[in-house]
Amino acid sequence: MQACAVIAEFNPFHNGHQYLLEQARKVTKADLVIVIMSGNFVQRGEPALINKWERARVAINCGADLVVEIPTEYAIDSAKEFAHAGVEIAQKLGASFLAFGSENPDLDFENESKILDRQFDQRAKKYNQNFAAQLFDDTAIMNSNDILGINYAYWNSKSKRGLQLIPLQREQADHRDTEIKGSIASASAIRRAALEQSEYFNAVPKASLKAIRNAKLTSWEDFWIMLNYRLLTSTPQELRHIKGVTEGFENRILNLVDKSNSFTELMQKLKTKRYTYTRIQRSLTNILLNIQATPFNLTKTRLLATNQLGRIFIREAALGSVVMTKVTKEDFENNYAITKRADDLYQLVSPYQWGKGPIIKKNVKE
Amino acid sequence: MQACAVIAEFNPFHNGHQYLLEQARKVTKADLVIVIMSGNFVQRGEPALINKWERARVAINCGADLVVEIPTEYAIDSAKEFAHAGVEIAQKLGASFLAFGSENPDLDFENESKILDRQFDQRAKKYNQNFAAQLFDDTAIMNSNDILGINYAYWNSKSKRGLQLIPLQREQADHRDTEIKGSIASASAIRRAALEQSEYFNAVPKASLKAIRNAKLTSWEDFWIMLNYRLLTSTPQELRHIKGVTEGFENRILNLVDKSNSFTELMQKLKTKRYTYTRIQRSLTNILLNIQATPFNLTKTRLLATNQLGRIFIREAALGSVVMTKVTKEDFENNYAITKRADDLYQLVSPYQWGKGPIIKKNVKE
Repeated sequence: MQACAVIAEFNPFHNGHQYLLEQARKVTKADLVIVIMSGNFVQRGEPALINKWERARVAINCGADLVVEIPTEYAIDSAKEFAHAGVEIAQKLGASFLAFGSENPDLDFENESKILDRQFDQRAKKYNQNFAAQLFDDTAIMNSNDILGINYAYWNSKSKRGLQLIPLQREQADHRDTEIKGSIASASAIRRAALEQSEYFNAVPKASLKAIRNAKLTSWEDFWIMLNYRLLTSTPQELRHIKGVTEGFENRILNLVDKSNSFTELMQKLKTKRYTYTRIQRSLTNILLNIQATPFNLTKTRLLATNQLGRIFIREAALGSVVMTKVTKEDFENNYAITKRADDLYQLVSPYQWGKGPIIKKNVKE
Repeated sequence: MQACAVIAEFNPFHNGHQYLLEQARKVTKADLVIVIMSGNFVQRGEPALINKWERARVAINCGADLVVEIPTEYAIDSAKEFAHAGVEIAQKLGASFLAFGSENPDLDFENESKILDRQFDQRAKKYNQNFAAQLFDDTAIMNSNDILGINYAYWNSKSKRGLQLIPLQREQADHRDTEIKGSIASASAIRRAALEQSEYFNAVPKASLKAIRNAKLTSWEDFWIMLNYRLLTSTPQELRHIKGVTEGFENRILNLVDKSNSFTELMQKLKTKRYTYTRIQRSLTNILLNIQATPFNLTKTRLLATNQLGRIFIREAALGSVVMTKVTKEDFENNYAITKRADDLYQLVSPYQWGKGPIIKKNVKE
């Protein structure tokens, strides 16, 4: 069986995602499509709009055969580390292809990726700055999807078990668009519309709409009391041990938290030219989750959802040691400790009934 | 000017406290009565029912001339360390007397206190066990006021600047009584009645009744989200650095927090024969406030409230270096850091407008 992997967040799942999954299957002619997805916290350094189980269920109902999770510490890391985790999982699962959305599918991703090795290369720096900036600002030159694509190519080139990269032309909507025009809109525009209870219904498949409508939508403000508490009870020394907290940022945060009454207020006060919103949000997520810098060490991925085809694939490819269908106490204490923490906190503000085992869709054609 | 000190919590201030202040002044013939009071967290290891500024104001309106604060790390410590801090402050303020309520004022407190030096003495152990037990259970032999008295005597005997100890016969109510019968009731009975909105009005002076009625009453449940969050994001190693967390208690807590939906539930699950409720609550308060064990080092006390007489006393006794009328940034970062932390958290659940400077009552006879 040949598998095509897609690295995604589906925050939330929209028509563009459905199109991407369809194209991935069509172009690669793969037997199944594997989605490698962020969990309850996402790469912008914030909680997902709806929980990972619901997002995985929607994905299975909208074209994926198998959904596995990127452990939280990597899911909320920089484009480079996020891509590292995604590619690592795709390779561990034995996928043949890695499909991704791109504004410029004709770009030579592999060639472009070579500059990532040159740490002092100005273009490499610019890529990363652009990527971070683009998530919030409109000042970036290059699209974040393409930057991710370059990072995928980079990690893919480091491994013997190479994946075939399949850049797929993205549908119309610029992911920075804030208005929803037709059936294609960006995930941020949809999140905003959902939180503001305005119109987005045409931009998402029915299954996604249902999931969004049934969920308690989640944003950073829901975690403000916890972050505020953590900051009020932390010393500068303790904060300096947190990943991404450097260069006196700990003192800046501690000074400003006293004067902030909401997450938004703190973010506004923290923003400077030097730090992008994304970088600040990521540091705050690391503080919230008490994450310290550790070397990359991804051994397993959790199965979130599957259909019959996905189950057969796991069995045939003998992926039992890579894909956790149940998370053991030992996993919870080791490689899965941060993800458990993220899930525990997420459930404090938005409880969900899933999580004891993966979501299993009984019939492929349901 | 001769001053009589009273170490107290006033949680909340009731008729028995008013009687104690009156007797202290009458018996000692002191020129003024100084109250050395816990702040927003108290010795049982829990938040005070109402904030420290309101309690200090009530004290000034009901017989105290000066109210200063026991820094939080000592206010929530064992009877021995609580007494240590109280006596230390009384001595630093140059008080002549230390008055305290007692069920057995004829007890030879100084003589009894000698056993506290003998660490392996069974009676010393029993004292401390009794004290802790008594705050919650009805199994104790000796009254907690007398145990405190013995601890006051102990620390007083260690210093050259001795205070004259004035044990004063307590009024009727056993502090373990849960029902409110007449005008004298225990602070716990009043707290419970206030939280349950049942009858306690005869047991407190008018000023206290007003303060209780106007306040957002505070209990541990208000801090459950913070404690829960802290536990969910802590490793056993991190918890072991917290004061009072020893002997595998960190693993017990981490195992049980997952199964608990409220503070009360966690407490019930944690309770064993080995640990009293008070000991558990104190450890949880240390976890909440992120307090690590440090050597005793009390240099200053914060002025909470005063009348004209109290102001004259501070000036005449040249107490400027001991009594903080304003807390400097340096104090907030050093000797007053834990107390600031406690206040910041308290204000998250029960905001108050005071705290920029002490409460000053303009006329002695108002």
